[in-house]
Amino acid sequence: METYYGIEAATGSKIAGDFELTETDQLDVIMEQAHAAYLAYQSIDANKKGDFLIAAAEEIEALGEQLISRAMAESGLPEGRIIGERGRTMNQLRLFGAIAKKGEWVEASIDTADPNREPFAKPDIRKQLEPLGPVIVFGASNFPLAYSAAGGDTASALAAGCAVVVKAHPAHPGTSQLVADAVCRAAERTGMPKNIYQHAHGAGFELAHGLVKHPLTKAVGFTGSFNGGKALYDIANERDEPIPVFAEMGSVNPVLFFPSALKNQAAVWGKTYAGSITLGSGQFCTNPGLIIAIESEDLDVFKESMRDTLGTIASQQMLHDGISKAFNQGKSKLESDGIVEIIYAKNEDNSRLGGPCIATASGATFLQNPQLQKELFGPYSLIVACKDEAEMLAIIQSLEGQLTGTMIIDESELSNFSAHFIALKSVVGRIIFNGVPTGVEVATAMNHGGPFPATTDSRYSAVGADAIKRFARPVSYQNCPSALLPNALQNQNAQGIFRKVNGSFTNDSIQ
Amino acid sequence: METYYGIEAATGSKIAGDFELTETDQLDVIMEQAHAAYLAYQSIDANKKGDFLIAAAEEIEALGEQLISRAMAESGLPEGRIIGERGRTMNQLRLFGAIAKKGEWVEASIDTADPNREPFAKPDIRKQLEPLGPVIVFGASNFPLAYSAAGGDTASALAAGCAVVVKAHPAHPGTSQLVADAVCRAAERTGMPKNIYQHAHGAGFELAHGLVKHPLTKAVGFTGSFNGGKALYDIANERDEPIPVFAEMGSVNPVLFFPSALKNQAAVWGKTYAGSITLGSGQFCTNPGLIIAIESEDLDVFKESMRDTLGTIASQQMLHDGISKAFNQGKSKLESDGIVEIIYAKNEDNSRLGGPCIATASGATFLQNPQLQKELFGPYSLIVACKDEAEMLAIIQSLEGQLTGTMIIDESELSNFSAHFIALKSVVGRIIFNGVPTGVEVATAMNHGGPFPATTDSRYSAVGADAIKRFARPVSYQNCPSALLPNALQNQNAQGIFRKVNGSFTNDSIQ
Repeated sequence: METYYGIEAATGSKIAGDFELTETDQLDVIMEQAHAAYLAYQSIDANKKGDFLIAAAEEIEALGEQLISRAMAESGLPEGRIIGERGRTMNQLRLFGAIAKKGEWVEASIDTADPNREPFAKPDIRKQLEPLGPVIVFGASNFPLAYSAAGGDTASALAAGCAVVVKAHPAHPGTSQLVADAVCRAAERTGMPKNIYQHAHGAGFELAHGLVKHPLTKAVGFTGSFNGGKALYDIANERDEPIPVFAEMGSVNPVLFFPSALKNQAAVWGKTYAGSITLGSGQFCTNPGLIIAIESEDLDVFKESMRDTLGTIASQQMLHDGISKAFNQGKSKLESDGIVEIIYAKNEDNSRLGGPCIATASGATFLQNPQLQKELFGPYSLIVACKDEAEMLAIIQSLEGQLTGTMIIDESELSNFSAHFIALKSVVGRIIFNGVPTGVEVATAMNHGGPFPATTDSRYSAVGADAIKRFARPVSYQNCPSALLPNALQNQNAQGIFRKVNGSFTNDSIQ
Repeated sequence: METYYGIEAATGSKIAGDFELTETDQLDVIMEQAHAAYLAYQSIDANKKGDFLIAAAEEIEALGEQLISRAMAESGLPEGRIIGERGRTMNQLRLFGAIAKKGEWVEASIDTADPNREPFAKPDIRKQLEPLGPVIVFGASNFPLAYSAAGGDTASALAAGCAVVVKAHPAHPGTSQLVADAVCRAAERTGMPKNIYQHAHGAGFELAHGLVKHPLTKAVGFTGSFNGGKALYDIANERDEPIPVFAEMGSVNPVLFFPSALKNQAAVWGKTYAGSITLGSGQFCTNPGLIIAIESEDLDVFKESMRDTLGTIASQQMLHDGISKAFNQGKSKLESDGIVEIIYAKNEDNSRLGGPCIATASGATFLQNPQLQKELFGPYSLIVACKDEAEMLAIIQSLEGQLTGTMIIDESELSNFSAHFIALKSVVGRIIFNGVPTGVEVATAMNHGGPFPATTDSRYSAVGADAIKRFARPVSYQNCPSALLPNALQNQNAQGIFRKVNGSFTNDSIQ
């Protein structure tokens, strides 16, 4: 059996502890186990599924300092961030535990029968969302806890009633294994079917692709690069039976500064955005990588403020060598290509640190060079200076799909820029006003998604309560005997959930 | 400009009237018009969108006898069916008109701000579903009205706020053109943006594929064969920007007869199912093409009853020459292959009539010959006689994805067959008890969809109120000024719709 090991992000040196790599000839066994567990899990009461997720949060917390230090070592992220991310991870598990228990997420809909209807009797039809089957979840390098072994994808898939197989991210195998063991302990002590949650290690593409290709796999959750996500998406679509892939990929998260808002607080916004692009060393999918404004003295003040503030911010560790290498190469290429003008670039002797960089280009240059829309993952942003409102609109209309778009705009100028608003809205998953895109609230109304290439499926969110919908499909029951109806579709509405009865929302039972 | 014409289904002769074929060099203009219309349509009040759809129903009704006779001639369907289908088409337009007006379909969700939350202030986030963009709708040969120019796909896409381009089915160009002109009149008299609805004729694949490939196209609705739907799905996924395709394709709609239910009413069920498989000459996507039971004397009674009843049912016209030819070839192949035993086959001198056919095979034969799962479109059904309950379960577990599955089962035997129930449920979009799958109620709780290859996206229904969700995606607004918020997300809940406010359903306004 081959093994691999964790690497300390700050030094590149090996961390003690080897992890067995899953061989592709084990895939059939893993997926057959996942399928059997999925079938058995369907007979487990939703309340117990909720207990399982809540127990998983407890088991992760019980790992204590061991988990914090391992995650810090493997990711290079500071303690405060890792502790915060652990809190978010536990909250997500508890949120989806509560969602499973409540049972309202299934979107129950009931149309009652009318035996006297002419020319045909109207049947009784009842519909709810049901789990897709075994789901593959890929760990994300930039969220070693919140989007990895027991992150949002895992929690929402388990809450939906799917079995989960996690493929650990090779940048943090030890963190992933600790968390996976905790989830398995929670599954055991809450009486879940064996193998409802499995965890696999693989260093190359072979295991990843094999898991997505397997006929028993029914959906995939992924957070990472465009190349990685698109490859999985293509594999999933080339299967005999195509399956959904929820890949949350790159985004430059355009920020539009409108004239009056910029005039009022150019220096303050410069400071704020220097903070936003360096948060977590710029390694957030919502990092503002593109700032768009009309050229003006105010914009110069903004740039200067951003530059000056960046000079005071210490460079931070990047997640792993692959990421820091790509970031440094990207910065060098900006200089050698000479298409944009570098405003500020800190080049660190220690190549593992992400030295922030900002650049600027005219609107015309941006429109002529579509490659400037591509994300440079790390603390980088491009400031585009448009010659006028019309060029600004043309630039917005030229944008690819994005996770977020931000408008820094005064109340007084809202009506002048409605075309800009509509154009921006049509290419983003979330539109933010007078703030920063970094910081993704885990809320019901959150949409963390967006048109391709930001994600492979703009119709679903990867964050918040609705993320559970990714792993389910509707099933209708026509004239179904009460004994076989799922709880949410029974006349007696034991949980008091809201359902659509004959087309109208109500939390009443049916008489 | 090249033209084509309609063909009388009963005779194969030309019907007067030529229709201009759209050339592929017109595609850019069509799609740019559709895109511009989609943008303009976003500023149209939802109430007016509803008026448009309701006016379209009126204009179609106003076509009167002209539409009925043209649709009968082109489709070969009898008058009663066409009049019924016209009624369904108008009802669908009115249903989606009402849905657009009510505005509840957007799944509004609001999480209010908490400026005092620690460690960070909680932002105000509001989410709703918004239209995807221009949608291509393909006319379906088996529903010349209800799933064609102004059918369910068109009505739901327009209600969602998308622009629609219909590609007429070449089997009924005249019917399609009459309806399209009626929709255009409705659009004009209700003040809709120019080109919000466009209609194109094309005889081969070129136009169809060109429409799906066009960069401004954002979604596709299709009802038809597996080969046709899968080709569009593949094209859509190979685009630089993949787009969703809702292709509702073939299905054999398995029907399971359980022992006690069969014993009680074998002859009655035989009669009922003879009626179901010949309804509309078997040209429904929910035609029961596969009947599964345990071998017994009761099953023999069922087969005899089905055979005897079929002998009394006159063969009906099929939709077009391509379909009748494929059906006749399929029947011949059943005989020449000799894998199944033909119980009854009516061979008509007039090859345009669909002579019903039923066949039988053992469970073992069915399991060994996966090709027996393939749909033979027309009045055909295969009866599989299993040796026992275990073989029956193995057969259910071997099934591909299906639109529907039916269980003919007595209350007394429900608990004996729960494994069969779970296995069937996991491969179908709708499960029916003690009835027939034909007849798809247009209801909120209806799911007309199912796992691949029944459809290309099991997560959406092509029939009923929820069909509108196919053409929309969520967009979140963070700290958005009230002046820019869509109606459904305003504090004042003017329409009194149910929304999720801080995670709970309510139809209250926000104070």
